[in-house]
Amino acid sequence: MPTAIPADSVGLVTPRIEHFREPLPLASGRSLHDYQLIYETYGQLNDARSNAVLICHALSGHHHAAGFHDPEDRKPGWWDSCIGPGKAIDTNRFYVVSLNNLGGCNGSTGPCSVNPLTGNPYGADFPVVTVEDWVNSQARLADVLGIEQWAAVVGGSLGGMQALQWTMSYPERVRHCVAIASAPKLSAQNIAFNEVARQAILSDPEFHGGHFQEQGVIPRRGLMLARMVGHITYLSDDAMGTKFGRGLKSEKLNYDFNSVEFQVESYLRYQGEEFSTRFDANTYLLMTKALDYFDPAAAHDDDLSRALAVAQSDFCIMSFTTDWRFSPERSREIVDALMAARKNVCYLEIDAPQGHDAFLIPNPRYLQAFRGYMNRIAV
Amino acid sequence: MPTAIPADSVGLVTPRIEHFREPLPLASGRSLHDYQLIYETYGQLNDARSNAVLICHALSGHHHAAGFHDPEDRKPGWWDSCIGPGKAIDTNRFYVVSLNNLGGCNGSTGPCSVNPLTGNPYGADFPVVTVEDWVNSQARLADVLGIEQWAAVVGGSLGGMQALQWTMSYPERVRHCVAIASAPKLSAQNIAFNEVARQAILSDPEFHGGHFQEQGVIPRRGLMLARMVGHITYLSDDAMGTKFGRGLKSEKLNYDFNSVEFQVESYLRYQGEEFSTRFDANTYLLMTKALDYFDPAAAHDDDLSRALAVAQSDFCIMSFTTDWRFSPERSREIVDALMAARKNVCYLEIDAPQGHDAFLIPNPRYLQAFRGYMNRIAV
Repeated sequence: MPTAIPADSVGLVTPRIEHFREPLPLASGRSLHDYQLIYETYGQLNDARSNAVLICHALSGHHHAAGFHDPEDRKPGWWDSCIGPGKAIDTNRFYVVSLNNLGGCNGSTGPCSVNPLTGNPYGADFPVVTVEDWVNSQARLADVLGIEQWAAVVGGSLGGMQALQWTMSYPERVRHCVAIASAPKLSAQNIAFNEVARQAILSDPEFHGGHFQEQGVIPRRGLMLARMVGHITYLSDDAMGTKFGRGLKSEKLNYDFNSVEFQVESYLRYQGEEFSTRFDANTYLLMTKALDYFDPAAAHDDDLSRALAVAQSDFCIMSFTTDWRFSPERSREIVDALMAARKNVCYLEIDAPQGHDAFLIPNPRYLQAFRGYMNRIAV
Repeated sequence: MPTAIPADSVGLVTPRIEHFREPLPLASGRSLHDYQLIYETYGQLNDARSNAVLICHALSGHHHAAGFHDPEDRKPGWWDSCIGPGKAIDTNRFYVVSLNNLGGCNGSTGPCSVNPLTGNPYGADFPVVTVEDWVNSQARLADVLGIEQWAAVVGGSLGGMQALQWTMSYPERVRHCVAIASAPKLSAQNIAFNEVARQAILSDPEFHGGHFQEQGVIPRRGLMLARMVGHITYLSDDAMGTKFGRGLKSEKLNYDFNSVEFQVESYLRYQGEEFSTRFDANTYLLMTKALDYFDPAAAHDDDLSRALAVAQSDFCIMSFTTDWRFSPERSREIVDALMAARKNVCYLEIDAPQGHDAFLIPNPRYLQAFRGYMNRIAV
């Protein structure tokens, strides 16, 4: 636990839940009836209701982006380094809204929720949701909160895709789009890694076709493998090298398969096992599919600038030099398309050793640039 | 089947098997009693016995490197593009020896072989073998064949590690070392990918602690996942992009988990499934461990040039620009160490789009350079 909550923290926060009764039509052709979204807010909405910032989370993220739920919490929210009084997203200036997306496993309606049609958990019957679907659900939350237009929609990785989608789905409702370590669509290699993760889950005998909850089990090994694969792609080769090198777990080599020889092996196993106890396998499948499907240029002859032509917002795009999951090149594709579409875009490529994970890490230059942009747009 | 065996093929070849009775001491402290090596030879050993070239295979390779076993064979050996009359390794000049390593699953003693002590297949009881162990076993095969000194020891990837090890274990027995798309040791990221592959196999319920043969099953899913992960690392992002892009398997998206949406997914699944029918899970574990353990500099305060100081051979090192498994940087580490040790080294970085797999692909500049080097050293 923190000895005291830091002065630049949003402090203790309590999630709220909003129920929605109107069916939400989905890209798949299906629809969701009777769902809920869990969210947190930090800071105060101003009288003009013009200072609201939406935070969109990535694959394994959730609504708890900043502050503490309990004074005993060992860790704050996942983006606490960027959200708080005086931080990049300054809660003295902005009213920040952070939600768990549909299909998630942290309180919004998802595969672990009860399907009202059957009385059992949805499991694998939960419909596939896309980035567009999420943005539509987020727009309904904005309606409830009385937010006509976001000062900014902000996200990293898959969250950046949602920020971009907002400018295309609801152009008049976004003043600024901040997309960090993101991409306009997955590459074949990105999809391939997702496919390995999915196959690891699907082939776990404890998966039971996605209805493991009724069986009282979880596909722990499949989720562990999925997370291990993912985790490798979040770190740079250099970051792994610096962190672990070829460091041995014990003094000498054991020459067997039961021992852990290298530190990187035990780190990965630990990360995988820990993840498998807190994340839902069906949600993992859904999140990877949402990533795969995102491709706004597809409906415009693969011309991203035409897809973004409707946008009315300004854009801040950031990438990190050692990110090989969504490399700077992928961010530059977005920037080039925005320039071709004559949008106002600011781009920063940040020298950081941590790979894709860098967007979560308080790198001074990153924080300075992020704070600089956000302070400039504060109302 | 080929309509006729091509003129530049070594033609029909028949593997030979050599039995060894003298126990082979292993790096692990264990030893192998009563083992066999399967191998093929192409070309003629000259009277001076000075034109022999040893081919060392990579992770999933074997002894069948060139030519055909049967006129009906649809494909020649795995390195047929580089071995044959007039090819880079010219069988009109060289006597080529290609074996399956110990621990393999293609005819040399390995986990599928019967353990003489128990009368059952070794399975998981087969001892861990290292690159050094392999080189020792290869030296015994050279003894049997009456080859005092190799004109060259040649290999790609894990095979290149064996070629390097030869120059340190038996310096007087190697005139030239050709190490292609190789590395002086694995990086933390390399080990991490291997660990995911191993965990996929170990966690398959059909693995049965490595004694699946007695159960009459194979850990098909685990092997499939292991191969899928491996396969992604063999290809460059660009190569995957060019080959598959985001091409769809059917006309439109299905939005479910049972369908294959993108071509890259069905390609990977096919590669994984096909591999799981022809490769042994315990061998896969052994090969990845041999990769992890290779680190000749470790015994010399991590100074590779000191490890290589004993070498008496000349060196040809080649790498490929888009290889991210063993990038050109890794080959340059070898080259730098060789130069520091004042060895004669020739280095070529080849512009090729295929990633790590490029060492198996008949890229004109690669073949020309390879042929040039080999012709120069022909006796």
